[in-house]
Amino acid sequence: MTSRRPTLAVVGATGAVGAVLLQALTHHADVWGEIRLLASPRSAGRKLAVRGEECEVLALGEEALTGVDLALFLVPDAVAAQWAPIAAAKGAVVVDTSTAFRADPDVPLVVPEINPHAVRIRPRGIVASPGCSTLALIVAVGALHAEFGLTELVVTAQQAASAAGGAGTEALRRQLALVAGSELGTHPGDVRRAVGDHTGPFPGPLALNVLPWSGVPAADGWSSEELGIREETRRILDLPGLRVAATCVRVPVVTGHSASVHARFERPVTVARAHEILATSPGVVLYDDPATGDFPTPADVAGTDPTWVGRVRRSMDDERALEFFVCGDNLRKGAALNAVQIAERIAGEAARS
Amino acid sequence: MTSRRPTLAVVGATGAVGAVLLQALTHHADVWGEIRLLASPRSAGRKLAVRGEECEVLALGEEALTGVDLALFLVPDAVAAQWAPIAAAKGAVVVDTSTAFRADPDVPLVVPEINPHAVRIRPRGIVASPGCSTLALIVAVGALHAEFGLTELVVTAQQAASAAGGAGTEALRRQLALVAGSELGTHPGDVRRAVGDHTGPFPGPLALNVLPWSGVPAADGWSSEELGIREETRRILDLPGLRVAATCVRVPVVTGHSASVHARFERPVTVARAHEILATSPGVVLYDDPATGDFPTPADVAGTDPTWVGRVRRSMDDERALEFFVCGDNLRKGAALNAVQIAERIAGEAARS
Ligand SMILES: NC(=O)c1ccc[n+]([C@@H]2O[C@H](COP(=O)([O-])OP(=O)(O)OC[C@H]3O[C@@H](n4cnc5c(N)ncnc54)[C@H](OP(=O)(O)O)[C@@H]3O)[C@@H](O)[C@H]2O)c1
Ligand SMILES: NC(=O)c1ccc[n+]([C@@H]2O[C@H](COP(=O)([O-])OP(=O)(O)OC[C@H]3O[C@@H](n4cnc5c(N)ncnc54)[C@H](OP(=O)(O)O)[C@@H]3O)[C@@H](O)[C@H]2O)c1
Repeated sequence: MTSRRPTLAVVGATGAVGAVLLQALTHHADVWGEIRLLASPRSAGRKLAVRGEECEVLALGEEALTGVDLALFLVPDAVAAQWAPIAAAKGAVVVDTSTAFRADPDVPLVVPEINPHAVRIRPRGIVASPGCSTLALIVAVGALHAEFGLTELVVTAQQAASAAGGAGTEALRRQLALVAGSELGTHPGDVRRAVGDHTGPFPGPLALNVLPWSGVPAADGWSSEELGIREETRRILDLPGLRVAATCVRVPVVTGHSASVHARFERPVTVARAHEILATSPGVVLYDDPATGDFPTPADVAGTDPTWVGRVRRSMDDERALEFFVCGDNLRKGAALNAVQIAERIAGEAARS
Repeated sequence: MTSRRPTLAVVGATGAVGAVLLQALTHHADVWGEIRLLASPRSAGRKLAVRGEECEVLALGEEALTGVDLALFLVPDAVAAQWAPIAAAKGAVVVDTSTAFRADPDVPLVVPEINPHAVRIRPRGIVASPGCSTLALIVAVGALHAEFGLTELVVTAQQAASAAGGAGTEALRRQLALVAGSELGTHPGDVRRAVGDHTGPFPGPLALNVLPWSGVPAADGWSSEELGIREETRRILDLPGLRVAATCVRVPVVTGHSASVHARFERPVTVARAHEILATSPGVVLYDDPATGDFPTPADVAGTDPTWVGRVRRSMDDERALEFFVCGDNLRKGAALNAVQIAERIAGEAARS
């Protein structure tokens, strides 16, 4: 990368994450030279606004990637797996939000609040951004880990529809229209019948329901999303022996992941000290006074950048364990924001060198 | 109680639990003599169907409780606290579904699949039925405990709207009508503004949201519902030292509680053996093949009697820990069915004596 302002490619600019990313580029301090918007050939010629200007979408291809310094990949796994190495070979640093490279030991997995240094060692020219469920909790968990020394996590992540992309949001909205104003929800299968085949990317009806499954089958009954939380958390915190048991459920929320977290530490914890840490950690907002109605909820924090934390309690049986509830926007910190933070850090590093 | 068919009073017959209880009385083998329906004076004179006959609702009072052998109480806590002892003093055995007596050492807390014997020792003439979140998981947990010896539970319970009574269901339905067909759910507070003061019994908007709070504030940041799961599970399983950390969240589901459970045992576990136990335990249905879409969901199991279990996995770090997902109808096994099971057991005991 040269010291002129770097050329940025946004690959997948037309998607759910892409839309939020263009907003972030518009509102953050502008460090970019040219910004090029890419998507599938289906979208070529569409115009999208970024930094207050209309910009025409190009089809992803060798030509569109030529001369790019930094490429943000916001596309399905298979597209990222194919095209990110090509972009890297053409000289771009790639920041990828898909699952394609998160487990690759030659690709750093980065959360700038926690392991910013990791971004510098990128043998493949690719940096991965974690999954949105990991990102919903990792900033808060990382802050507590730094003080108390994490040994175990038991997590139930409640995932929003938009984590399944534009198709997820659309399916939930259609389903809600089918059930709203009805008496559905008390007889076996009545919601399933009403929703019919409008399940979209989900393995069943999401409206008026909780689906205890997301991702694809992995080993021994676990889903890829659940093992993702485990492996990603271990990598980001550099705790290869961390005990992690995660359950991912999908809930009828448009945007906003939440998670109920049981965290066990090496050292005794207090709620007062945990509050202090969370209240002063970058990227975290403590919102914890349930008696007056102060706890974060997905619908309230959607559209915001930080990780919100509430419901902090110490286990009644274990002075080393805390329970808490985290919320964050899966499209922002869960994807676009984290990717932009990584990209800005790389651009800053290049400008200083 | 005499050996003639006992007279049954249903106190709170007009409520959400009452409606399901009248269905159960209609469909179960009929062991009752007179069935008397009671509610507040507001409902006196209303007619409700039970056992295929219309029956007039009476106002709860001393007179309406005279000559009752068994009284099912399905009323708010304060009403139960006041009137259950009066019914007992008039000679009825009371089965109460409220929280009023669940922690009273002189009132047995009974789940017939687990501690049926406890029903016989009732110094106050009152038997309590556990809370619906405890009942969502206790039958499955109890079966596994019998084999492996439970030492710790970490639970996230997803509670349905109807657990807050008819008012809860009504509030959720009204809120869904306000948000369906909209683009709401991606900007901070947009759902909250649309729902306005139609929050009903909930501490915030439930449509398109997850509310990490139910019940009232208890000690140290815990809610009464969360401590209820802890105390009730300990009592029912007779494990006063059991480690329990529960989180209760409310989800936009009409009926059907679910819970993500992390259970640790004295002895090593296998998924195969856990499957065998769950597949053969009374009151439990094992539904666990996520690769083919088989996992229980609240909307699918609403209106059914059993506790459904799926997503059984062994912890990857601990051969003594299992994760699983349970679902059950909060109005059936979570309240009306458990109460009827207790009542039928008491009636059977009296008939045999
Ligand atoms: N949604 C989240 O909360 C979230 C969070 C973390 C990570 N992620 C990851 O971020 C990535 C994007 O997710 P999303 O939710 O934004 O999905 P999405 O709404 O479905 O958008 C997909 C994007 O990829 C583009 N695309 C699809 N096939 C392509 C192809 N063959 N060549 C070039 N572009 C192609 C689409 O362009 P067209 O419009 O032209 O089809 C669109 O811009 C995924 O890897 C996802 O796993 C998402
Ligand atoms: N809903 C659940 O999933 C669930 C599960 C477990 C336990 N429970 C417990 O079951 C009980 C009933 O819950 P619910 O959900 O059915 O509530 P609900 O729908 O609000 O019904 C309340 C019932 O109590 C009656 N009632 C209220 N005030 C009364 C008074 N002063 N005198 C006599 N009757 C009075 C009401 O009669 P009117 O119609 O005349 O007002 C109605 O029949 C509660 O203690 C609740 O905690 C509920």
